[in-house]
Amino acid sequence: MASPTKDQAAITGVGYTRISRSSGVSVAALAYEACTNAIRDAGLSSQDVDGILSYSWAGDSIPVREVQTGLGMRQSQWHEDILGGGPQCCSIIGQAAMAVASGLCKHVLCYRALNGRTGLRMGRLGTGAVGRQGARVYAGRDQWTAPFGFAGPPQRNAMMTRKHMARYGTTHEQLGQVAMTLRDNAVKNERAVMRTPLTMEDYLNSRWIAEPLRLFDCCQETDGGCAVIVSRADQAKDMLHPPVYVIAFAQGGGPAMSGGMDKYDDFTAMFPKYIAPGLFNRGGVTVDDVDFAEIYDAFTFAVICQLEDFGFCQKGEGGPFVAEGNIALTGKLPVGTHGGLLSEGYIHGMNNVAEAVGQLRGAAGARQVRGARIGLVSGFASNMGSALLLST
Amino acid sequence: MASPTKDQAAITGVGYTRISRSSGVSVAALAYEACTNAIRDAGLSSQDVDGILSYSWAGDSIPVREVQTGLGMRQSQWHEDILGGGPQCCSIIGQAAMAVASGLCKHVLCYRALNGRTGLRMGRLGTGAVGRQGARVYAGRDQWTAPFGFAGPPQRNAMMTRKHMARYGTTHEQLGQVAMTLRDNAVKNERAVMRTPLTMEDYLNSRWIAEPLRLFDCCQETDGGCAVIVSRADQAKDMLHPPVYVIAFAQGGGPAMSGGMDKYDDFTAMFPKYIAPGLFNRGGVTVDDVDFAEIYDAFTFAVICQLEDFGFCQKGEGGPFVAEGNIALTGKLPVGTHGGLLSEGYIHGMNNVAEAVGQLRGAAGARQVRGARIGLVSGFASNMGSALLLST
Repeated sequence: MASPTKDQAAITGVGYTRISRSSGVSVAALAYEACTNAIRDAGLSSQDVDGILSYSWAGDSIPVREVQTGLGMRQSQWHEDILGGGPQCCSIIGQAAMAVASGLCKHVLCYRALNGRTGLRMGRLGTGAVGRQGARVYAGRDQWTAPFGFAGPPQRNAMMTRKHMARYGTTHEQLGQVAMTLRDNAVKNERAVMRTPLTMEDYLNSRWIAEPLRLFDCCQETDGGCAVIVSRADQAKDMLHPPVYVIAFAQGGGPAMSGGMDKYDDFTAMFPKYIAPGLFNRGGVTVDDVDFAEIYDAFTFAVICQLEDFGFCQKGEGGPFVAEGNIALTGKLPVGTHGGLLSEGYIHGMNNVAEAVGQLRGAAGARQVRGARIGLVSGFASNMGSALLLST
Repeated sequence: MASPTKDQAAITGVGYTRISRSSGVSVAALAYEACTNAIRDAGLSSQDVDGILSYSWAGDSIPVREVQTGLGMRQSQWHEDILGGGPQCCSIIGQAAMAVASGLCKHVLCYRALNGRTGLRMGRLGTGAVGRQGARVYAGRDQWTAPFGFAGPPQRNAMMTRKHMARYGTTHEQLGQVAMTLRDNAVKNERAVMRTPLTMEDYLNSRWIAEPLRLFDCCQETDGGCAVIVSRADQAKDMLHPPVYVIAFAQGGGPAMSGGMDKYDDFTAMFPKYIAPGLFNRGGVTVDDVDFAEIYDAFTFAVICQLEDFGFCQKGEGGPFVAEGNIALTGKLPVGTHGGLLSEGYIHGMNNVAEAVGQLRGAAGARQVRGARIGLVSGFASNMGSALLLST
């Protein structure tokens, strides 16, 4: 069944704050600024916006009802705070698309704001609370792994990377190629935090974070906010920018998508293996139709693995695919055209969505992918994730 | 614009656990049992279910990805954990309806499980963390009110009740009538925790919780789980039970819906004032078409106030409307036909949704509303909330 959202929902506004290592302001201020900019970019007023969605790890952001109140959105028919992270950069857009397609809303504001560097730093070990003696207290499965240093995203991804290297011969240099390629794009992007070109020597000399992942294999932790407006397509036609249609969405992770690595059925495969068939089917396009991909690049390895599991190359061939230059701006499938989470900044994937919109508007300037017509965006956490197909 | 979900999404399965004051099992066990029962009630297997949604206050439930893994749902295209409470009993159904209407999923499993009595007790003061000396630590606006005993839902609702009494002459006896009416229904409901008939004397003699609210003005805290399956309408036609269509959904709270009472524009009005017009408009029905209402009855006052703000009676007339017997099973608008959160139990509103389904299936036994064709369900927290319109 094709997706009835296909011609009915379009992204019509994008807003950013500055992305930095120290915003100097509250998460609320970041959220308001990003949202205000997105509303303005769409040529709307807050009175036109009748839905609002965001996501967070409870407590690291500002609830949608506060932003709704602050913006004076009087017409709202729907608001929701989603509990989650990377995957939700796509899922809030998918949900907004469903809301406009089903007639619930006309314009839905989607945002993510976080002081990811000066506030909650996700890269720090684990999620345990601070106990009475100041030591971290771990619950659930973390209690068995965190005391040994295995608790955060870098450790999980390091283990997957190692297995991929052992099974498929993926190399350090191939990982490095991902970091270098995205940095090349960041050099062309005035929003990016890291704009100094990266050499292979720089990469190989960077320190271990969780072996075999080095510093430059890991995305940044930054402060910032990013917002997007999803509009009913009939409204989008007459707005300021060319509409960017939401043609398909999926979120999943197959039979063992719970957080614990003990349940993974394959350390060398990621969520697209499970969601890609449904996604492309609903979008009515194939992997060959995709002109660029803003792949959730929390780690360089995750780019290589997702390229394989979405079907952009054969399984195990992600390393050579990258090394051959295919993901460069001038390559077969440009990836992370803004520098991604690795080099632009980490707004929990919302900046990847926003960049895809810029590309499909033809407004990406020096880093524009020529003739970009269809773009893929993904997001993940542990072994589950999500994706969007967007089109002109 | 009418809601295109109207003829496209139907509730096809309902599952409960026992509702009790001590489940003796984990929240995970409650979730699995309720979900398994809902899948069985729909005549499906977990392989047929391709979406899963739940809501929680982060940490008081089990994430959807765990339940998906445990149930062996291999086909899932979407899952989401919503951060929230009462309003989300309706919003996850609304979202599931949008997902099936837009072709993303065929069957979406929606659940809520909580050990609300033996685990996190929401009625306890505030949301502050326990600090190093064992004292509660309050952040945000709670820090200004909690030390004076004003921090939880009972205090907020007590203040609204008092204002309503002062402005409209609402009486203690009218509040008591809500509690007694719902208890009468619970007597007829084998799932209800509180099945002893309640007299006005019992009510008036019950202790203060937050004046003018007494013990029997406040919903219970119970352990339990409840789940519902939302299916694509073309699938629903051939399933075990008569389909119950989701004809409209809304969630909001107007211009000042953030949590702090300092922002309320009117202490005597609740969220339906803002969402009812859009809800009825999308559903293509009027308030007069509604045959019964499972109004979110966290407090007796909230029933009276919502009756007014949905338009079932004039503003300020909720007390007399109740006192005249209109909300009894045999009245003009039966409310809380199962006993509600006040007398059946508190599964954060999901049991109100499930009861509405039972009514619209004509399967409510001794408490069946005759000729029930259209039902309203609501949910709220602070001064924002949500509602569903369901129909045969």
